[in-house]
Amino acid sequence: MSDPHKTAESEYSTKGAYVTGGEFTRDTNYIEDRVVADVAAVQSAAPEESSTIGDPRIAGLTDGAQAWPVESGRYRLVAARACPWAHRSIIVRRLLGLEDAISLATPGPVHDARSWTFDLSPEGRDPVLGTERLQENYFARFPDYPRGITVPALVDVPSGQVVTNNYPQLTFDFSTQWRSFHRPGAPNLVPEDLVEEMLPVIKKIFTEINNGVYRTGFAGSQSAYEEAYRRLFDALDWAEERLGRSRYLMGDHITEADVRLFTTLVRFDPVYHGHFKCNRNKLTEFTHLWAYARDLFQTPGFGDTVDFDQIKEHYYVVHEDVNPTQIVPLGPELQDWVSPHGREKLGGSPFGAATAPGPLAAEEKPPGTNPL
Amino acid sequence: MSDPHKTAESEYSTKGAYVTGGEFTRDTNYIEDRVVADVAAVQSAAPEESSTIGDPRIAGLTDGAQAWPVESGRYRLVAARACPWAHRSIIVRRLLGLEDAISLATPGPVHDARSWTFDLSPEGRDPVLGTERLQENYFARFPDYPRGITVPALVDVPSGQVVTNNYPQLTFDFSTQWRSFHRPGAPNLVPEDLVEEMLPVIKKIFTEINNGVYRTGFAGSQSAYEEAYRRLFDALDWAEERLGRSRYLMGDHITEADVRLFTTLVRFDPVYHGHFKCNRNKLTEFTHLWAYARDLFQTPGFGDTVDFDQIKEHYYVVHEDVNPTQIVPLGPELQDWVSPHGREKLGGSPFGAATAPGPLAAEEKPPGTNPL
Repeated sequence: MSDPHKTAESEYSTKGAYVTGGEFTRDTNYIEDRVVADVAAVQSAAPEESSTIGDPRIAGLTDGAQAWPVESGRYRLVAARACPWAHRSIIVRRLLGLEDAISLATPGPVHDARSWTFDLSPEGRDPVLGTERLQENYFARFPDYPRGITVPALVDVPSGQVVTNNYPQLTFDFSTQWRSFHRPGAPNLVPEDLVEEMLPVIKKIFTEINNGVYRTGFAGSQSAYEEAYRRLFDALDWAEERLGRSRYLMGDHITEADVRLFTTLVRFDPVYHGHFKCNRNKLTEFTHLWAYARDLFQTPGFGDTVDFDQIKEHYYVVHEDVNPTQIVPLGPELQDWVSPHGREKLGGSPFGAATAPGPLAAEEKPPGTNPL
Repeated sequence: MSDPHKTAESEYSTKGAYVTGGEFTRDTNYIEDRVVADVAAVQSAAPEESSTIGDPRIAGLTDGAQAWPVESGRYRLVAARACPWAHRSIIVRRLLGLEDAISLATPGPVHDARSWTFDLSPEGRDPVLGTERLQENYFARFPDYPRGITVPALVDVPSGQVVTNNYPQLTFDFSTQWRSFHRPGAPNLVPEDLVEEMLPVIKKIFTEINNGVYRTGFAGSQSAYEEAYRRLFDALDWAEERLGRSRYLMGDHITEADVRLFTTLVRFDPVYHGHFKCNRNKLTEFTHLWAYARDLFQTPGFGDTVDFDQIKEHYYVVHEDVNPTQIVPLGPELQDWVSPHGREKLGGSPFGAATAPGPLAAEEKPPGTNPL
């Protein structure tokens, strides 16, 4: 079973960990270094537990991890537009206005057996890192790095070394550790008074929805598939109900939880519905979820980061075990993503007292199809 | 590339004929014998050309074909519920009330490499023909039969020989040659005054829609797929437009043309949308086509012959080259098939001066999921 977040080599090397009794299980071992505002304080804090969802409140490091200092221009975010786990970091970086502080490298949608590659860049080499494959940056850090070459990865530009690929914590650290570099008017995606309630929501989104589509699509048996399908749609029904009452997951304004749900929803009809057999219904057939997804899509920082072509190409070409012909479907039609969503009637506003990010810089625009 | 209408052995043996320049091409060689009301007249009539859509007006036989006499109880229709080409004959037989004259054998949805099999029957043997595989009945006719073991096949029960598998002509002959065995009140599915206009409609449905979904799903290249997808949806848009003006394809009452379109529409969302990548939109997203499909589904003779489980199992299990995991999707939800269709406002009625068939005999009920 393959995983778009990882390359085939790593899938192979860790294959046993992925499918147990027919059920797909995600490898959650990462380079858990953090880039933080106060290195000394973090290094001296009590050790933290690893977490599949991260935590914006943690003060320290997990076992063996190091702290690196926030510094404008020092790090490069390597994030494939195709990958939902990387997409989170692209959205949060933009919502917070970290573009000038943290540059962005976008590997193409179709990685090879060894690594995500910079095949979209001139001469197939990232212009800042100078590497052809992200694997080189992993090896610069750990010459015998044994696990998956995953995105997102934050790379230290001077040394070319991967600092962290721990995506669950990465976006929280963008919010909490990089505050001094946020744009004026940046939203607080992890409001202190909501964190306690938000983390279980984020956990449910991760286990049941973000990962639920993979569990469904990579199920190794009919019964594992059916169990995964039911778990997924139970959770989507839960989100549908919650979003019938509230404009965003945590109330009147966008938070990290919305970012994490959006990256799965925007891929649902183009990929997960057909390719992963998540076909009880399309996203467009959920009244509230579909309106909510459009509301976010039309909010600066969300829809303008989406590249539907790269998303489709990634899944349909990389997963030869699911789609041996590697033919990429032409559908679905996308124009309804920009239709009126009517969510204003629930009150609230995406940014509250904060402001929306300005227009995307030309060089940051996704090159592929986008109905915006 | 495989074809659900044929078994894998035949696909292999004629593979060259199927994919040319990446495009799927259907083998249209059949056993073109006919069962007719007046054997002598048909045998002495001028020769006819083979046709991919059949013709209710033809008087004679194609080259090498023979005429057999209509006779109640003599023939057995072998028609897998999963197969759209066979499904036509099941619907027409029922609409015309030919159940007592022509018995029905239903092979299971998953044929093996050699043949459709009677695996759903007690001890895996058809209780009337006594065979385990339809191939035996083909070999009884032609011991070295070289082509696909296809359904529908009409079998002469006394000899166990296949009489014809020429499905385009079979349903027309049910209408025109078997008149003396039609039930009282049976509809005329090929009204003389409409035939001239109906045949081009049927031709378009065959080439662009019935076969268009296969051309899309079995395309051997991205460009062949994209061309096929566009042809298919152009034709569905044509049907959508036509059915916005008229309750049925040929006007106020059901005809053979409706039967031929229905068998593809009823499989569209459960199979063709995802499995064959016909995913511009679901059937449920066409205003008129979806209401029309429900209108037919709720008409006795159409929906009551549908077995959604067998349909899904057939495609997703047989086409290992498209779906290597052979996992059968649980979706889509089917309850809307019985929702009000509102087509009465267009006028017309399914049967006009004729009548609907009565309830299905218990032994003829599809065993699988059906929301009726």
